[in-house]
Amino acid sequence: QASPVDANPLVGVNPLVGVIMGSRSDWETMREASAVLKQFGVPHECRVVSAHRTPEWLAEYARSAEARGLAVIVAGAGGAAHLPGMVAAETRLPVFGVPIQTAALGGLDSLLSIVQMPRGVPVGTLAIGAAGAYNAALQAIRVLALVRPALAEALREFQRKRAEDVRSEVLPDA
Amino acid sequence: QASPVDANPLVGVNPLVGVIMGSRSDWETMREASAVLKQFGVPHECRVVSAHRTPEWLAEYARSAEARGLAVIVAGAGGAAHLPGMVAAETRLPVFGVPIQTAALGGLDSLLSIVQMPRGVPVGTLAIGAAGAYNAALQAIRVLALVRPALAEALREFQRKRAEDVRSEVLPDA
Amino acid sequence: QASPVDANPLVGVNPLVGVIMGSRSDWETMREASAVLKQFGVPHECRVVSAHRTPEWLAEYARSAEARGLAVIVAGAGGAAHLPGMVAAETRLPVFGVPIQTAALGGLDSLLSIVQMPRGVPVGTLAIGAAGAYNAALQAIRVLALVRPALAEALREFQRKRAEDVRSEVLPDA
Amino acid sequence: QASPVDANPLVGVNPLVGVIMGSRSDWETMREASAVLKQFGVPHECRVVSAHRTPEWLAEYARSAEARGLAVIVAGAGGAAHLPGMVAAETRLPVFGVPIQTAALGGLDSLLSIVQMPRGVPVGTLAIGAAGAYNAALQAIRVLALVRPALAEALREFQRKRAEDVRSEVLPDA
Amino acid sequence: QASPVDANPLVGVNPLVGVIMGSRSDWETMREASAVLKQFGVPHECRVVSAHRTPEWLAEYARSAEARGLAVIVAGAGGAAHLPGMVAAETRLPVFGVPIQTAALGGLDSLLSIVQMPRGVPVGTLAIGAAGAYNAALQAIRVLALVRPALAEALREFQRKRAEDVRSEVLPDA
Amino acid sequence: QASPVDANPLVGVNPLVGVIMGSRSDWETMREASAVLKQFGVPHECRVVSAHRTPEWLAEYARSAEARGLAVIVAGAGGAAHLPGMVAAETRLPVFGVPIQTAALGGLDSLLSIVQMPRGVPVGTLAIGAAGAYNAALQAIRVLALVRPALAEALREFQRKRAEDVRSEVLPDA
Amino acid sequence: QASPVDANPLVGVNPLVGVIMGSRSDWETMREASAVLKQFGVPHECRVVSAHRTPEWLAEYARSAEARGLAVIVAGAGGAAHLPGMVAAETRLPVFGVPIQTAALGGLDSLLSIVQMPRGVPVGTLAIGAAGAYNAALQAIRVLALVRPALAEALREFQRKRAEDVRSEVLPDA
Amino acid sequence: QASPVDANPLVGVNPLVGVIMGSRSDWETMREASAVLKQFGVPHECRVVSAHRTPEWLAEYARSAEARGLAVIVAGAGGAAHLPGMVAAETRLPVFGVPIQTAALGGLDSLLSIVQMPRGVPVGTLAIGAAGAYNAALQAIRVLALVRPALAEALREFQRKRAEDVRSEVLPDA
Repeated sequence: QASPVDANPLVGVNPLVGVIMGSRSDWETMREASAVLKQFGVPHECRVVSAHRTPEWLAEYARSAEARGLAVIVAGAGGAAHLPGMVAAETRLPVFGVPIQTAALGGLDSLLSIVQMPRGVPVGTLAIGAAGAYNAALQAIRVLALVRPALAEALREFQRKRAEDVRSEVLPDA
Repeated sequence: QASPVDANPLVGVNPLVGVIMGSRSDWETMREASAVLKQFGVPHECRVVSAHRTPEWLAEYARSAEARGLAVIVAGAGGAAHLPGMVAAETRLPVFGVPIQTAALGGLDSLLSIVQMPRGVPVGTLAIGAAGAYNAALQAIRVLALVRPALAEALREFQRKRAEDVRSEVLPDA
Repeated sequence: QASPVDANPLVGVNPLVGVIMGSRSDWETMREASAVLKQFGVPHECRVVSAHRTPEWLAEYARSAEARGLAVIVAGAGGAAHLPGMVAAETRLPVFGVPIQTAALGGLDSLLSIVQMPRGVPVGTLAIGAAGAYNAALQAIRVLALVRPALAEALREFQRKRAEDVRSEVLPDA
Repeated sequence: QASPVDANPLVGVNPLVGVIMGSRSDWETMREASAVLKQFGVPHECRVVSAHRTPEWLAEYARSAEARGLAVIVAGAGGAAHLPGMVAAETRLPVFGVPIQTAALGGLDSLLSIVQMPRGVPVGTLAIGAAGAYNAALQAIRVLALVRPALAEALREFQRKRAEDVRSEVLPDA
Repeated sequence: QASPVDANPLVGVNPLVGVIMGSRSDWETMREASAVLKQFGVPHECRVVSAHRTPEWLAEYARSAEARGLAVIVAGAGGAAHLPGMVAAETRLPVFGVPIQTAALGGLDSLLSIVQMPRGVPVGTLAIGAAGAYNAALQAIRVLALVRPALAEALREFQRKRAEDVRSEVLPDA
Repeated sequence: QASPVDANPLVGVNPLVGVIMGSRSDWETMREASAVLKQFGVPHECRVVSAHRTPEWLAEYARSAEARGLAVIVAGAGGAAHLPGMVAAETRLPVFGVPIQTAALGGLDSLLSIVQMPRGVPVGTLAIGAAGAYNAALQAIRVLALVRPALAEALREFQRKRAEDVRSEVLPDA
Repeated sequence: QASPVDANPLVGVNPLVGVIMGSRSDWETMREASAVLKQFGVPHECRVVSAHRTPEWLAEYARSAEARGLAVIVAGAGGAAHLPGMVAAETRLPVFGVPIQTAALGGLDSLLSIVQMPRGVPVGTLAIGAAGAYNAALQAIRVLALVRPALAEALREFQRKRAEDVRSEVLPDA
Repeated sequence: QASPVDANPLVGVNPLVGVIMGSRSDWETMREASAVLKQFGVPHECRVVSAHRTPEWLAEYARSAEARGLAVIVAGAGGAAHLPGMVAAETRLPVFGVPIQTAALGGLDSLLSIVQMPRGVPVGTLAIGAAGAYNAALQAIRVLALVRPALAEALREFQRKRAEDVRSEVLPDA
């Protein structure tokens, strides 16, 4: 069946989330997204797809995503970061963008290049850097939870556990 | 049935998307979100919910959202914009944030207050201003399309029509 | 007696100042606030209270602060820093905010998220980083000095001593 | 009696809050502070005191403030805004700064000039522009409420009324 | 003959420069580019080509540009401005980018989205707004002058005339 | 013959591209430009030419560039970076500017000083830092390819090879 | 006699200050400089001298300034503002720069282009816009006062009068 | 004799330039100013004078500067940098400001706090950091050269030597 979210994706082999990035050097940041998805047991794939070096493949990747069973795409890029927006232009799946931190401008360039999309092509943008990669994966899980009660439950447990951790923090002496 | 996306929401009366904003003055921007949802036939509700003036209600609104059948929350706020992040902290539904343009800093303050969320609480952030409100609604529709084939179809038609419009543009003489 | 500033707080055991922060990693910055309060003999408490991980506790903490005898709250947070503003929304005590320095944007995000509060909910914001934490505590002491003549005297001595230090500085040869 | 907050300041003639500004043109912004203080019945004075045109008077004003019975100073200034910090250097009273919006840089210059104070001289900084002026006055009232139960009560009523207003908002159709 | 710069392009009918923009609303800015090219007698075409609404056409346009006889591409876009970079990724012709001024951030978003291209895909970026559109066309003419002695001569005359204009300016009384 | 691009420049001894920079310390960045030109076999020269220390020589260099056979100038400078614009004012050759990264402002100062040229004197500006130097050279090659079929061919091969590299990337485990 | 400040310049006909600007449109800002100089009776000249349109004349102007009797140069420019720095590179007279406010970036571009000069060529930079033009002239007068006791006296009177004005301000009711 | 520039200051013992800074930690930057003055043989003094810790001394220092024979003041400060502007408010001597680089915002805060002075009190501002300190001293020397032919001559030699250095640079191989 062609539905993007098939009968039992969590134990299946087909990825539900595509985690892509503009360059191999972005992996240091984007591995956080992969780690979160793994922690929640969400099948996913990680690929380097470059808007500027492989525009044809980007189009191919984005256009075939739905048919291949992906439900969400997480895309990280830095500087003049065109990957998330160009993918969003070529698919109807929700795309979440991660601005990679940059040496010169700290990632403000990446952030503005991703978030300031014109009317009609949305990219849900997360924070600059590793926290953004982590949260893009969580946002994908929140989306998937709409159809996976187990993920909804796991998210609730995740939030409960984190609150507990905070409440048990004891600070050292100043 | 308690599922957030019930059998036939598009013709039902229960809202699937909550469009909230920190102040009545944000409506001028956020009405774009409502207009898009209306255009796609997605039931939704529009409310002023202020993180700073009504923190209790914010908590109440966010915590009850899932049980009330909402599947996505779109939240707009300006300046020290805490609404989207605080809502995301109190629900497991996906939250999309819209930074309202501001007089002093153009909305850079709103944008950074919304997008720079710490690890663990994602807010998918859209562009500053009306384009962001428009796109937050579209992003909600992309998410809902995971379970509504009709919306997936409508999105494809929307994209096709927009491309056609561009290709038929004729520019006047310089 | 229920007055927030009781008969002799400086020797009492009840904290007058609550020093809170969004994450344990903020302690490196916020310990400066604690150190200043200790130096001036002001009883205080230091806690991790996260707007995003423990919104319920934040509300609880802020709403009970006055009754517990706190007179001032100092709150540090980084990135999309919502803690100071959300606390200020839930109490009528004066709140002083400390923007934590961030890796990507230097703390401009923290600063704008804290200082740009809308009409009606004030957060007195200090400088980014350790100087801000130090000064937030001093500001709390300036406030407490309104009712503690000994603190007023100590502040005058503090200022006198610092001026003296400057005037005795001798610079080395270029 | 020399106490900064004398027996019954709310009905007395002596100002408790000094509202000062660097130039007459700042009055359009700073009148909001005066209006809030008036609304809460707090006696105050409004003066133009320029750090750059009247440095001597600034020193005189700040040094005599405590003796004259002021308990809090609210200072607004724009551009290279030195007034709040210089006043804070010359008094031990709490000083709240209001960055005036500027034509060229929107008030980012005013904000950074006021908030980035070095270790030892705190200025509690509010938002750029009229919201900041409004909130600086509210912050002064929060401080005064430590010794004026009537103000504490009035603040609670103010917060309650504002929450009510939000909850009764009805948005028009998109 | 397949050479991008054929025997006598200045009087021919085939465009040498493609002036493209992401949206019809950019024409107000980009018409300056067209006006300059007209003034220098350079055949060119003006088209709306949207990276986000018509990604396929963008690819088609860019890939066929060289074969159609274009020698230079001038591309204007605003916000998350991906058009110039994506075109540069799909052609080997020199691409000059024009950041369109934006309401929220003045065009800083457009500028960074265009100029911060990664290693391997250059976009020669001009100033934000109309001056940038004007100069992108001039830069195209400087490039074409490498093979068109008449354009080199026209540029020299243009520079000479402008210098003369400056030297004859007489300022009014203060 | 006086043509800037003579019969067989690729094997000749005369430089076609002038790579200049405002200070010797810029060489660490600008050597990337030289390396790319070398890789493509484009004869070029590298020189320190300072707008501020050697304004006369700058004028001399820029005015004689065309006659000496240069076809493109690549100029890198940092801070108040005037070199690219001043060279562009003194020649009719296309000039490409490289903003050098700076310690205080990351290169935002260099970028704005180079890119924001007024109507009439274009500088095609590349990214801040080494990527910009690399791309300025590539942009020069794209320009030269208009008259050198071999370079056009080499660019196509360069793009093909880079796409291939991306497609063969395999990411490690998270 | 060749001294830049001759026997009685205030009544002489030779200008002591050169007020220059990059474009006629800068006159609206720079006329403030001229007005101040006129008010203090300082002979001066006002000229459009463009770094980018008339680089030769800029060099000529700057190199001959000292011999023509100028003692100080005030230079205003906007965007990629190279005029003040290039003039400073060609003279040994003190140069004061005025960043013109710009439509896109408010004048931050002008400011950074003028102030961030490298080691060895100083430009004393004033505020963005009309206040900067006014102050550049005052700074020139402060410099000239080193050798003109009458100007020193006039400056003291100017400061005294301004202080008096501030102290007599009466604010209206809020 | 009371003239600020006495008969032979270069060999005298009285300082002509006051180099002041807000904190001892600024010395690492400001020593560059002292080194340049020493190189040109200009008598000067270096002092820590803090606007915020020693406002009285600041006033005293600035008011007595002229009588003590100083002709120019160079003032460095960081963050909310009030020293240069406050000194300029208390003297009629020309003041040159040096923005110290800061950890959080790179010195943008220092720059805006110094340069954005209001109409009437000029501070000639130099670049952020060590280059600014170096240039502030050079600017002082340019001013002093108006009355010291030997300094004028030394500046010309300095510029000549620097140009020569640039022209003899030989770059290594890429």
